Amino acid sequence: MRTRSFRSVVKNYRAVFFDAFGVLKNHKGLIPDIANTFVYLEKKQIPYYVLTNDSSRSPEELSGWYIKHGLPSITTDKILSSGMLAMEFFKTKLINGNAVAYLGTKDSAHYIETAGLKTVPIGEIDLDNLEHVESFAFLDDEGFDWNTDINKTINLLRKKNMTVIVANTDKNYPVNKNDIAVAVGGLADLVEKILGKKFIRFGKPDAQMFLLAYERALKDIPDIQRKEILMVGDTLFTDIIGGNKFGLDTALVLSGNTLADNAKIKIGSSGIIPTYVCDSAVIDL
Amino acid sequence: MRTRSFRSVVKNYRAVFFDAFGVLKNHKGLIPDIANTFVYLEKKQIPYYVLTNDSSRSPEELSGWYIKHGLPSITTDKILSSGMLAMEFFKTKLINGNAVAYLGTKDSAHYIETAGLKTVPIGEIDLDNLEHVESFAFLDDEGFDWNTDINKTINLLRKKNMTVIVANTDKNYPVNKNDIAVAVGGLADLVEKILGKKFIRFGKPDAQMFLLAYERALKDIPDIQRKEILMVGDTLFTDIIGGNKFGLDTALVLSGNTLADNAKIKIGSSGIIPTYVCDSAVIDL
Amino acid sequence: MRTRSFRSVVKNYRAVFFDAFGVLKNHKGLIPDIANTFVYLEKKQIPYYVLTNDSSRSPEELSGWYIKHGLPSITTDKILSSGMLAMEFFKTKLINGNAVAYLGTKDSAHYIETAGLKTVPIGEIDLDNLEHVESFAFLDDEGFDWNTDINKTINLLRKKNMTVIVANTDKNYPVNKNDIAVAVGGLADLVEKILGKKFIRFGKPDAQMFLLAYERALKDIPDIQRKEILMVGDTLFTDIIGGNKFGLDTALVLSGNTLADNAKIKIGSSGIIPTYVCDSAVIDL
Amino acid sequence: MRTRSFRSVVKNYRAVFFDAFGVLKNHKGLIPDIANTFVYLEKKQIPYYVLTNDSSRSPEELSGWYIKHGLPSITTDKILSSGMLAMEFFKTKLINGNAVAYLGTKDSAHYIETAGLKTVPIGEIDLDNLEHVESFAFLDDEGFDWNTDINKTINLLRKKNMTVIVANTDKNYPVNKNDIAVAVGGLADLVEKILGKKFIRFGKPDAQMFLLAYERALKDIPDIQRKEILMVGDTLFTDIIGGNKFGLDTALVLSGNTLADNAKIKIGSSGIIPTYVCDSAVIDL
Repeated sequence: MRTRSFRSVVKNYRAVFFDAFGVLKNHKGLIPDIANTFVYLEKKQIPYYVLTNDSSRSPEELSGWYIKHGLPSITTDKILSSGMLAMEFFKTKLINGNAVAYLGTKDSAHYIETAGLKTVPIGEIDLDNLEHVESFAFLDDEGFDWNTDINKTINLLRKKNMTVIVANTDKNYPVNKNDIAVAVGGLADLVEKILGKKFIRFGKPDAQMFLLAYERALKDIPDIQRKEILMVGDTLFTDIIGGNKFGLDTALVLSGNTLADNAKIKIGSSGIIPTYVCDSAVIDL
Repeated sequence: MRTRSFRSVVKNYRAVFFDAFGVLKNHKGLIPDIANTFVYLEKKQIPYYVLTNDSSRSPEELSGWYIKHGLPSITTDKILSSGMLAMEFFKTKLINGNAVAYLGTKDSAHYIETAGLKTVPIGEIDLDNLEHVESFAFLDDEGFDWNTDINKTINLLRKKNMTVIVANTDKNYPVNKNDIAVAVGGLADLVEKILGKKFIRFGKPDAQMFLLAYERALKDIPDIQRKEILMVGDTLFTDIIGGNKFGLDTALVLSGNTLADNAKIKIGSSGIIPTYVCDSAVIDL
Repeated sequence: MRTRSFRSVVKNYRAVFFDAFGVLKNHKGLIPDIANTFVYLEKKQIPYYVLTNDSSRSPEELSGWYIKHGLPSITTDKILSSGMLAMEFFKTKLINGNAVAYLGTKDSAHYIETAGLKTVPIGEIDLDNLEHVESFAFLDDEGFDWNTDINKTINLLRKKNMTVIVANTDKNYPVNKNDIAVAVGGLADLVEKILGKKFIRFGKPDAQMFLLAYERALKDIPDIQRKEILMVGDTLFTDIIGGNKFGLDTALVLSGNTLADNAKIKIGSSGIIPTYVCDSAVIDL
Repeated sequence: MRTRSFRSVVKNYRAVFFDAFGVLKNHKGLIPDIANTFVYLEKKQIPYYVLTNDSSRSPEELSGWYIKHGLPSITTDKILSSGMLAMEFFKTKLINGNAVAYLGTKDSAHYIETAGLKTVPIGEIDLDNLEHVESFAFLDDEGFDWNTDINKTINLLRKKNMTVIVANTDKNYPVNKNDIAVAVGGLADLVEKILGKKFIRFGKPDAQMFLLAYERALKDIPDIQRKEILMVGDTLFTDIIGGNKFGLDTALVLSGNTLADNAKIKIGSSGIIPTYVCDSAVIDL
C-alpha cells in the first residue's frame, strides 16, 4: 500500500502524540534513527508526548530508559501512562488507611505508593482478614506465581466485593522478534470471565488516555484544537481507533504490530481507517 | 438493602450529573415529584446536567420534552447526549461535500445536518454509486425497514470500507412497564459481528460523555474537581461504572433498571459499586 | 496453495458427506459439472449424503430442488438437515396439544407440523394468553416483519420461560455473487444477547448433525468406521472443524466460502486444518 | 422451589446418566448416603453411567476412587470421561510416530499413551525442533509452571499450525467449600483468545459425551430410546442443556453448583429448563 513520508505528514500539525512500543522502540532498543525525528520536532517547536499502556513502571523510570538509550528529550513530563490513570483513580477513590491488593512486581506498586496509598501484593494477603483491603489492581504480569496467585486473586474477589482496576488493557506484548507473552490485561480477562464481574480498564483506546495527553498539550499550547494533533501508532485497535474517536488525526506506522504486507488487509477487515500510513516515524534529516 | 435519602447525599456536592430514563422520567412521563429536586438544586445553587444515550433527537427536542412536561429548568444547555458526540465527530472527520449514510429516522439525521453535513438514509443509497458516501452512522432503531435495510447496511459496508459510528451504545430500551425494544446499539452489535469489523461507539459508560459534561460544568464552576460532582443513574453498566471510572462519586437510584429487591445481588455479581444507593432522586420538600 | 484432485481423494473412502451450498450449488444453481461426481460415486458404489444447515424447507423440498436442476440421485433419504434435528427435538420434548411459537415462513413450520406438532407464527401470538405456548423455534429469516416481530419475540421470552431452539446455526448466507443476508442464526444471536439466555442450536459444526448422517451411513454399510468417511465442505468453521472433531477425514473445497487466494491464510489463522484441500468437488470423467 | 423426590423420578426410566462432581461426590468425599441410590438401581436393574468432564485421570483411576470410597459398583466400564473422547480423537488423527504436546501432569498424558501414542510435556518441547510435534492437548491445570509454560504454549502454536484439543471444557472447579480454581478449559480460553484460533473442545454439554454414554447404554439395553434415559446433574450449562439437546429427560439436583435458594432464578434467567428438580440424587431406603 502507498505510504507517506512521516515528515510530509507531521509538518502540518501543532503537536504529536506517540505510542511507544513499535513506534519509538522495539525489543532490540530504540528504532534506528528515531532520534532524528525529535531533532526535527524540537527545531520546528512542535511539542510531543508519549502515550503508553504501561503500568509496570513509573513515568520517571520510563523516561530514564529513553534518556539512557539516547533520547534525552523524552523527559518525565512528556510521558503519559495507563499506570498514571490508575494512580489518579485510587487517589480519589481510596479511603485513607485502606489498601489496594495487586498482581504485579513490587516496582509496579511502588508508583501507587508514591501518592501516599498503601498496597499489598496478592501473595501477602490473608484471605481470612480482608477488613482493610478495599480495591484490587492488575499492574504487571511478572512478580508473582501464576499457579497460586491467579487462583488466590479469584477467591479474594469472590470473598469480598471490591472495585477492580486493570492498569494496562493490552492482552499480550512482544518479547523478541518472534515471541509474545501474556500481558496483565490478558490475565485480567481470564479472571473477569471466571468471576462474571466487570473491571475498570485504563489505557488506549480509551478516551481517558487521550484526555490526559490533551490536557498536557493544552498547557504547552493553550488554544490547541484536537484536530491539530497527530496520533502516531502501530496498532489499529488501540492507537488508531482511540485517536480517531477522540477527534485526532492518526498516522499508522508499519514498524511494529502492523506490517507492510498486511496493513491493507487489516485496515479493510477491521474498518479502522488511519488518516495516513507511513513506513515509520523516522525522519531523514 | 439500606438506602440513603437523596437530599442527604446530594447536599455534599457542587454539581450533579443525571441520567434521564429511570431517573428523571419513565415510560409514563416524569418520575412523580422529581420537580422538587430541581427546586432544591436551584435554591442551593447546585448546577445540574442531564447525560443521555440518545441520538434520535436533538438537545432542543430533548429539552422541549422536559419543559412541556413541567420541568422548565432543563434547558438545552443542560443536556448532553451521545448524539452530540456523534455530530462533533463528523464535524472534524468528514470531508466537505461527502455524505454520512445512516440507519434511523429523518429527524435523527436532521441534527447532524444542522452542522452543515450531508446525510443519506440507507434506503436512498445506491450500492453501485458510493463515491460520495464516506461514513456510516447508527442513529435510531426506527425510520427504516429492518428486513431490507439491515442487510443493505451490511452489504454497503462490505462494498466500501468506511468509518462507522454508533451514536447510542444502549442495546435495548423500555417501551412500557413490561416490554422492551431493541435499540440501535443492539442492531449495531448484530452488524458488527457479521462483518467482523470494529465500530466507534459514543455514549455512557465511555469517558467522552462524562468529559463533555465536565467541560460544561467547568464553565459554570471554573475550579470544580471531579470528586465534587455526583453522577446519579439507574444502570450499573453505564451510569455507575462510567462515573466511577471518570473519578466522580456515584448514586444508584432504584427507580428504573435496578430494583430494590435485586440491587444488592446485582452490585455483588457485577462488582460495580456505587458510592451511594438511594430509592430515587426525588427530594421531599 | 497446492490442491489435490477430488477424484484422487474420494476414491479412498467408503462414504462421502457433502455440504450443500458452496460445494454442490451456489447462488446461480448447480456447480457446473458437479453431476459428474455423482456418476462416479454411483459407479464406484460409494454412498453419499448431503448435510445442510437449513431449516427453511423439508428434506422433500430440498431434494426436489436437486432433482429439478439435474441431480436425480439426490433423493430425500440422502438429505440430512438441521431442521430434521429440530423436528426430532420437538417430537420428544413437546407435551401433546401445546404449541411451538416460531420466527419463519409458514413453509418452514409446515415440516414440524408433519410430525403432528402444533405451531404458531410469532405474528399470531397473543402475549396475554401464553398458556399453550411451550417452546420457541428460530426457523427462517423470512416470513415475518423484523421491525415488530423480533421485539415481540424478545417480550414473549421475557414473559414466559420456555426452551428455545435455533434450527440453523448459520449467521448469514450469500444471496448473490457479492451480497449476503443475515440468517436466522444471526437473528437468534441478537435475541439471545439481549435476553442473556442460552438457546439450543442445531446444525454443523455440532456433533448431532454428523451423528444423524453417520447413523444413515450405518444403514447402508453396517460396519463403516468414522475414519472411512470423507466430509467435503467449503467452510472451515462448520464443515471442517465439525468433521475433524467427529473423527472424519475432511476435504476443504475452494468453490464457495473459502477462496484459493486466502485458503492458506484462513487455515493458518484459524488453526482448523482439513485433511485435504481440493479446488472443487467436481470430478472430470 | 418445589422439588421432587429422586426415587419418584428415577423409577420411570430404563437407564440413568450421572454427572460426578456435585451429584455423587464433592470436595469432602462421597455425597452422604449416595450409596443407597446404587443399591436401589441395582435392585431395580436400572443401568447407570457416570459422565464426567475430566481429562486428568484415566477411567481406571476415576473408578478406583469410587471403589476406595465405598461405591464398588462404579467400575471402569461405568465411566465416560472427556479424556476418553480426546484419546479416541488422537487415535484416528495422529500419524504414527508423531507426538502430542500437552499442558498437564504426566499422569494425565499417561492415558493417551496407553493407546500407543507419543506425548511430550510442554516443558520438554524444543521450539526450534517441532518436526515431530503434530497436535496439542490441554489436559490438566496442574503439572507445569503457568508463568513460563502458558507463554511457551502460545509461542509453540504461533510457530507451527496444528490441531489443538481441549480435553475438559470446564472453566473452573471447586477446591473446597468456599474456593475455586481455574480449570484447564479456562486456560485454553485464554490461549485461544490471544491466538485468535479455534480449538476443538471435548466434554459436556457437547453431544459427543452423551453419544459415548448412549452407545454404552445400547450395549446393555439394545432397544433403549433416548427419552427413556434420565440425565442427572448439578449444572444447568453443561449437564442439563446438553441432556435436553440430546433428547434425554433431565433432573437438576441441588447438591452442588446450583443451590436451593437460587435454582429458580438461574433457570429463569438462563432459559435452561430441567424436566425435574430434586434436592439431591440420594434415595432413602
